[in-house]
Amino acid sequence: MKARVHVTLKPGVLDPQGRAINHALHSLGFDQVGDVRQGKFFDIDLGYEDRDAAEAAVKEMCDRLLANPVVESYAIEIDAP
Amino acid sequence: MKARVHVTLKPGVLDPQGRAINHALHSLGFDQVGDVRQGKFFDIDLGYEDRDAAEAAVKEMCDRLLANPVVESYAIEIDAP
Repeated sequence: MKARVHVTLKPGVLDPQGRAINHALHSLGFDQVGDVRQGKFFDIDLGYEDRDAAEAAVKEMCDRLLANPVVESYAIEIDAP
Repeated sequence: MKARVHVTLKPGVLDPQGRAINHALHSLGFDQVGDVRQGKFFDIDLGYEDRDAAEAAVKEMCDRLLANPVVESYAIEIDAP
């Protein structure tokens, strides 16, 4: 079983990296580019048999390690074979 | 129109961050965790009308800025409304 976790800055939190990329793309001539937001994601191989148990564990992994709850939010996709 | 770009290390390229996260998760007691790979993604607002033009532009953005072609590969999703 695999999980993919997307971690993004919460709306309203300034994204300096996204802004820097926006400027860089414009300087390269990509003038059709609007807002750019950057995030990180994790592909995690899991040994759980049960999908709900896997989802609960991944949620706890996010809360305890993968995401900073103050400024980040996360989305979990479980890819049960 | 929006694009989401996932940038990952190419298979075979050592992922020290993924490995560090794997160890951290195990030390937190998540012993069902196997391989962990970390990547980055970009959500880009685009002003293109035509989907193919948007996809071609985003591919060029990846080749020129968003991904390091030596060690990274990328996947593009275009979310045409």
